Amino acid sequence: MSKGTLLYAQSGGVTAVINATASAVIQAARARKVRVLAARNGILGALREDLIDTSREPLAAIRALAHTPGGAFGSCRYKLKSPEQDRAKYDRVLEVLKAHDVRWFLYNGGNDSADTALKLSQLAAASGYPLTCVGVPKTVDNDLVVTDCCPGFGSAAKYTAVSVAEAALDVAAMADTSTKVFVYEVMGRHAGWLAAAAGLAGAGGDAAPQVILFPEIAYDEAKFLARVKAVVERVGWCVVVVSEGIRHADGRFVADAGGGKDAFGHSQLGGVGPLIAATVKDRLGLKVHWTVPDYLQRSARHLASKTDLAHATAVGKAAVEYALAGRNGVMPVIVRTGDKPYKWKVAPAPLTDIANHEKKMPAGFISKDGWGITAACRAYLGPLVRGEAPPPYGPDGLPRYVRLKNTPVPRRLPAWEG
Amino acid sequence: MSKGTLLYAQSGGVTAVINATASAVIQAARARKVRVLAARNGILGALREDLIDTSREPLAAIRALAHTPGGAFGSCRYKLKSPEQDRAKYDRVLEVLKAHDVRWFLYNGGNDSADTALKLSQLAAASGYPLTCVGVPKTVDNDLVVTDCCPGFGSAAKYTAVSVAEAALDVAAMADTSTKVFVYEVMGRHAGWLAAAAGLAGAGGDAAPQVILFPEIAYDEAKFLARVKAVVERVGWCVVVVSEGIRHADGRFVADAGGGKDAFGHSQLGGVGPLIAATVKDRLGLKVHWTVPDYLQRSARHLASKTDLAHATAVGKAAVEYALAGRNGVMPVIVRTGDKPYKWKVAPAPLTDIANHEKKMPAGFISKDGWGITAACRAYLGPLVRGEAPPPYGPDGLPRYVRLKNTPVPRRLPAWEG
Repeated sequence: MSKGTLLYAQSGGVTAVINATASAVIQAARARKVRVLAARNGILGALREDLIDTSREPLAAIRALAHTPGGAFGSCRYKLKSPEQDRAKYDRVLEVLKAHDVRWFLYNGGNDSADTALKLSQLAAASGYPLTCVGVPKTVDNDLVVTDCCPGFGSAAKYTAVSVAEAALDVAAMADTSTKVFVYEVMGRHAGWLAAAAGLAGAGGDAAPQVILFPEIAYDEAKFLARVKAVVERVGWCVVVVSEGIRHADGRFVADAGGGKDAFGHSQLGGVGPLIAATVKDRLGLKVHWTVPDYLQRSARHLASKTDLAHATAVGKAAVEYALAGRNGVMPVIVRTGDKPYKWKVAPAPLTDIANHEKKMPAGFISKDGWGITAACRAYLGPLVRGEAPPPYGPDGLPRYVRLKNTPVPRRLPAWEG
Repeated sequence: MSKGTLLYAQSGGVTAVINATASAVIQAARARKVRVLAARNGILGALREDLIDTSREPLAAIRALAHTPGGAFGSCRYKLKSPEQDRAKYDRVLEVLKAHDVRWFLYNGGNDSADTALKLSQLAAASGYPLTCVGVPKTVDNDLVVTDCCPGFGSAAKYTAVSVAEAALDVAAMADTSTKVFVYEVMGRHAGWLAAAAGLAGAGGDAAPQVILFPEIAYDEAKFLARVKAVVERVGWCVVVVSEGIRHADGRFVADAGGGKDAFGHSQLGGVGPLIAATVKDRLGLKVHWTVPDYLQRSARHLASKTDLAHATAVGKAAVEYALAGRNGVMPVIVRTGDKPYKWKVAPAPLTDIANHEKKMPAGFISKDGWGITAACRAYLGPLVRGEAPPPYGPDGLPRYVRLKNTPVPRRLPAWEG
């Protein structure tokens, strides 16, 4: 074994392929004879000294991680503030890392995680502790800057495009006497990447989805209803894709899924999908159905994109290489080097360029009428959903997903009083 | 070509594999040199004389139907009443059939379609017109009697079990700092077959789903909340599967998705999933997420069960054989002939035994505590979700679903004044 330990942690919403990154990290480190610990539930595991010894997992289990959705070591929604505000926590993390001889820290997440990894790398350097911090990209929201795309997004995009295409065939068959308008709610609070991916289900024009409501475009009810009415008159039915993050012109969310209360003080957890469906029903008198896939869209490993899986694996492998080479404060990002055919490579990018930024969808990706995607958007999204990478299935007809033992590492420090 | 024409029609909610039945029907008839017309939108196509000439479709397209979800010729929610009440309609259908020399009528649907096929066969016989009517089973609700299971159900069951298993891995990863309870709404207004299928996602006990709310068991909020609370305390998180059809002890639906109005007169289209989620949030103070897959669960051909596909194909082939053999008023049903290993065959059953009956889930399929399924239920459901039958995918990463030309047959009668 090499001197020193590598610590890996997962942060934020999980994806269909974040465990593929974990699998690649552990396999790459094992190949270099480096011990890998995992923090349980992201940075919280480091604060709590709740660490997992991945060397207790057989290779078969680590390989099976590559086809298992969810977050194998637990994730967290927990953001460290600036070192000025949260200094005691940063110090505690460094203390835990030192206690376990952690020389390399890989944080697998989005913007916040990149920021945490960056801050930690700076504090370690300032304190003279030799720690190399590497951010590893992951998010179905596809909102990290610098990288061409984010591992996790391609599979959620494929799930969305396939599900919209399948539902459209259903609605088309039912429309004569039943459902005329089908509403599909996608994730994406701030940017319409997954909403745009739904556009891959059809060729545009009168093909489903005929209406995409992007968070980038202020919701105009009258315009929306006029469009739906026209499509139903022309096609006989209409598929509407709505981003959870659509807003009114004044910036208010159209629906606050976290939300409001009804007259009796009960929580309204309606989501924007059923709300838009109700609007169509009330104002146009058309029969509607709606779906909110929610977590299904980011955990559907059974429908993962092969390209996305390759990205997720490559960034995990590269992260270990960068870390062991002492490249502190970087993130392996996806660089698109060719479009026809699609080509890509992984390259290191400074976390300072990535942390706390948010990638918006280019205006040129939304069609002029606002209801669909452009050729430029298709050219960007197309390669990300290409290829299939189904998990192995058992004789019971279910995917063979793995559960790790997650053996805890004995604690060496007093409990955290955070 | 043989003398006479075979008419095929689809009815009711479509499934992931109803087109596989259509494909088998057309291929079996072509092999016997019998011309096949399809009625557009079920029995309405027969009333309107809106018929499709399937001979205009190349064999490749007919074969591709076997992996295409939705209803290729359109379906309908339209029930003919008794011949006493709807005599003019029955007469019109017979008139259209005669005008196109239809000697064999295959109606692919559920209880109502079986009833229509039966009535039509009786009227034709009474009028001396040589017409053989065969019902062909199809429904994700699995509620036809006599048959061991219904084509379409196995694929929806597989989709449900896989999706619940995947979402459970997501929730398990997030629960420490985020979602503690995940609510999954399944179809099944009258019987809990799909709710039960969710039970295949885990082995029972503390494995997800830890709570299934069946329509067969009166919803008891206090008991439900106590169960969720206990599971979250023990496991850290909880997956709840709820059937759209759950009712209070007095028989009222817990949520009427078709729905109520709010104080402003707006339609409330929140299904029971978000309502149950809101109850957990308000009463237990736990963070919740919920999903309503809706049409996705019955159109997900990408995740079809191989067993279900085989059933759907076999009943299509058998229906043609029965029809051409003049077996009037029957339905090809699935007969289970062995459990270990699973064995089955197709056999004809009289429509009189099937029409207007509804198969309930046996009481012995729900565990004593009411939250899960029994070994007997697993033994029944297990084979139905076994095997994978993915569609071919294109280079764009989407399944290669086919759209038929659906060339209309020239009309020979005056328009229907129905």
